[in-house]
Amino acid sequence: MPTTENSVSNYNIVSLIRKKREGENLTKDEINYLIEAYTRDELPDYQMSAFLMAVFLKGMNDDEASALAYAMLHSGKVMDLSSIPGIKVDKHSTGGVGDKLSLILAPMVAAAGVPVPMISGRGLGHTGGTLDKLESIPGFDVNLNLDRYVEVIAKHGIVFIGQTEDIAPADKRLYALRDVTATVECIPLIASSIMSKKLAEGIDALVLDVKHGTGAFIQETSGALQLARRLVDIGSQFDKNTVAFLTGMNQPLGNKIGNWLEVEESIECLRGDWPDDVREVTLLLAGSMIHQGGKADSLDEGIRKAIQTIEDGSALQKFREIVIEQSGDVSVIDRPETYTKASYSADFTAAEDGVVSRINAYLVGMASLELGAGRKEKSESVDPVAGIVLHHKMGAKVKKGETIATLYTNKEAQLETAIKLMNEAYELGGEAVDYGPLITHIVDKTGERPFDYSKVPALKSR
Amino acid sequence: MPTTENSVSNYNIVSLIRKKREGENLTKDEINYLIEAYTRDELPDYQMSAFLMAVFLKGMNDDEASALAYAMLHSGKVMDLSSIPGIKVDKHSTGGVGDKLSLILAPMVAAAGVPVPMISGRGLGHTGGTLDKLESIPGFDVNLNLDRYVEVIAKHGIVFIGQTEDIAPADKRLYALRDVTATVECIPLIASSIMSKKLAEGIDALVLDVKHGTGAFIQETSGALQLARRLVDIGSQFDKNTVAFLTGMNQPLGNKIGNWLEVEESIECLRGDWPDDVREVTLLLAGSMIHQGGKADSLDEGIRKAIQTIEDGSALQKFREIVIEQSGDVSVIDRPETYTKASYSADFTAAEDGVVSRINAYLVGMASLELGAGRKEKSESVDPVAGIVLHHKMGAKVKKGETIATLYTNKEAQLETAIKLMNEAYELGGEAVDYGPLITHIVDKTGERPFDYSKVPALKSR
Repeated sequence: MPTTENSVSNYNIVSLIRKKREGENLTKDEINYLIEAYTRDELPDYQMSAFLMAVFLKGMNDDEASALAYAMLHSGKVMDLSSIPGIKVDKHSTGGVGDKLSLILAPMVAAAGVPVPMISGRGLGHTGGTLDKLESIPGFDVNLNLDRYVEVIAKHGIVFIGQTEDIAPADKRLYALRDVTATVECIPLIASSIMSKKLAEGIDALVLDVKHGTGAFIQETSGALQLARRLVDIGSQFDKNTVAFLTGMNQPLGNKIGNWLEVEESIECLRGDWPDDVREVTLLLAGSMIHQGGKADSLDEGIRKAIQTIEDGSALQKFREIVIEQSGDVSVIDRPETYTKASYSADFTAAEDGVVSRINAYLVGMASLELGAGRKEKSESVDPVAGIVLHHKMGAKVKKGETIATLYTNKEAQLETAIKLMNEAYELGGEAVDYGPLITHIVDKTGERPFDYSKVPALKSR
Repeated sequence: MPTTENSVSNYNIVSLIRKKREGENLTKDEINYLIEAYTRDELPDYQMSAFLMAVFLKGMNDDEASALAYAMLHSGKVMDLSSIPGIKVDKHSTGGVGDKLSLILAPMVAAAGVPVPMISGRGLGHTGGTLDKLESIPGFDVNLNLDRYVEVIAKHGIVFIGQTEDIAPADKRLYALRDVTATVECIPLIASSIMSKKLAEGIDALVLDVKHGTGAFIQETSGALQLARRLVDIGSQFDKNTVAFLTGMNQPLGNKIGNWLEVEESIECLRGDWPDDVREVTLLLAGSMIHQGGKADSLDEGIRKAIQTIEDGSALQKFREIVIEQSGDVSVIDRPETYTKASYSADFTAAEDGVVSRINAYLVGMASLELGAGRKEKSESVDPVAGIVLHHKMGAKVKKGETIATLYTNKEAQLETAIKLMNEAYELGGEAVDYGPLITHIVDKTGERPFDYSKVPALKSR
């Protein structure tokens, strides 16, 4: 059992684990050594998991987190998009139930002339990820190789692919290991994982959407701010213009949850038919990307340019273009109503008169998982048509018996459990809980500050 | 990578790691579950090492450490010696350079009528373990199976064997894993590891020698006391009469270090020719074992009975008996001077006039390792004749050029490095550092107290 051939390097590995265990900081070279040895299979999982638990409990400072991001980034291929004109900008969100914003903002930003090279993940936990959503479009191919990736971004200023084996392979292995060793919820590990993948894309700038609130991965504002600072700090150390926004996730984002259902809602948004919350956060992030991409002089101007891509139809046109380029069936984009329907549906209705005072987004996510929209295990496939349409969200008045949401599935037996979860998720009362504004903070290399709506009048104009 | 077939048990394992990570206490059932799954290969090393690091950093209370000892004990065979009359007593020491006490005290205690079933380990680090020392006696067989173990203890009241595959296999695996994941120096893990093996022997009572001081594994008295309390607490929870003594390890114990050299010194002791430090600690532990074995009414009487086994030759006779029983060549016991000599030797001499003020026992151990007496890697074999004879210990006055120690080896090239280490180990000055009395504390189920020499006059009588 646990012995390695090279006792010298083994000694070093144990002493590095010990160093972190004692709360000391590792040097950039030491972190590089660990990740390189892990990538070369010279450092076994059982040593890495002891190290990860020591990091979880003893922390990592900014320099260490940056070094970890650097080491994971360089465990694989780092794309070079310098041959493509313009400032390449991507967006990353820490995710939430109903978050389909990438599908909407990427074509908007690309239509405004800023290239968006997007490498996305699949769903973890309750709902599918961006790739799962895109794959609900018949034929849509997210498995482009890296040559095609460069070709497509050069041609259309937009591309959607999955993390290939070449991109930050050390991160991929570490992520899987963290998942089974109770070392996931660790801010420096989360930050370096996100940044290693994003930096590999060949971007020049990055906009981050860090969620907080009852439905977020990190509920506390303080924790979300800490993560945002780490992300911005790592981005800055790599000379990438990085800005993070803290946005509230206290109920599902938008009205549709599920894979195809979220594509459908994205098409509606691209046609100008927005739920308020989706509009606000999408315009913020798209505006910021356009601003950072050098196509607007301010965030407000960026938002105005983003709105313009909706009004002139160029964003929807860009989305059609990329669907066609990546072998998707564009007819479902043009006529979403022709998309195959789920075999079963059921209404979730109000048990009494009242106001929707609270919605537990996590439980809504679990309901959609039960219906087939997410994965319980990594090997499972997702059902494109399963999901939930919310007819009423927080603050809405409902009458007893009125339909609050409609559930769709191909697994009839799951409807009962899903309805039960929706019942737990929705709270009816006298009035809605006030969680305050949706966008709370902005963090960039100059520091953090509360978000000032008065500086971006375009955001609330309609 | 990291996924298990049974996702339910996997979920439980991750949640148990998380629980410990958050500093919560695990129940007896939860600890049992982890160890059982690990023993059945359903819990992979990478999860166990994350758990071990969480235990290292968050601790375990007495109940958890007992539960861990229990689970590891029951991962294998638990011997039943109830068919053998008498109270079976064993001794365990946390170890130190030159510690050959088991070889001397086991025959003494057995000669006094108390059965001593001893399952020992091999050397870890600088010097060989009890098994390595015994194997330096030509033909001596420590690999008895468990049936023979019972047979020999029944016949002679003494037996020396190694930890078989049947004895606490979970401990064996955990120990190897801790070694490579920087989770060794953790008191609850050390305590439960020791006790799981000792309890498997089928003992009724246990005497523990917990070392502290500059040459000990745990240098601080507070840490050694903590370990002693844990050990006694676990023993008491298993209804085994357990007593621990804290003894100083501030220079090597006795004058000979090495495998055969320590057997040789043990024979000298059994013949009544003792170094003071070896005599004091051996009589203490042997006396306590005889007392706990019901053959003396007090520790002092136990010590007197122990001395008697030396004076009447019965201890040496018992040692001869067990050597013969376990196929050893008794002629080397009777005429140690006939034992094969090492091919090379060298003197380590004083560089100046002075008093030996300090001896770093760890470095002396490293010197003996260089000479071939220990293992650098688990697969290596030890050289029976390699080692060091110390002619002068702390407090001795030496003249420039006088021989302080003689080094023996079959690897001539190693002499230079070993001499260098001895030079570092020995400090000459105006006077010796005063480390106080050798025996400092006693810990039993009634609590801990400083050791009172005045209550055991037999210890210092000659």
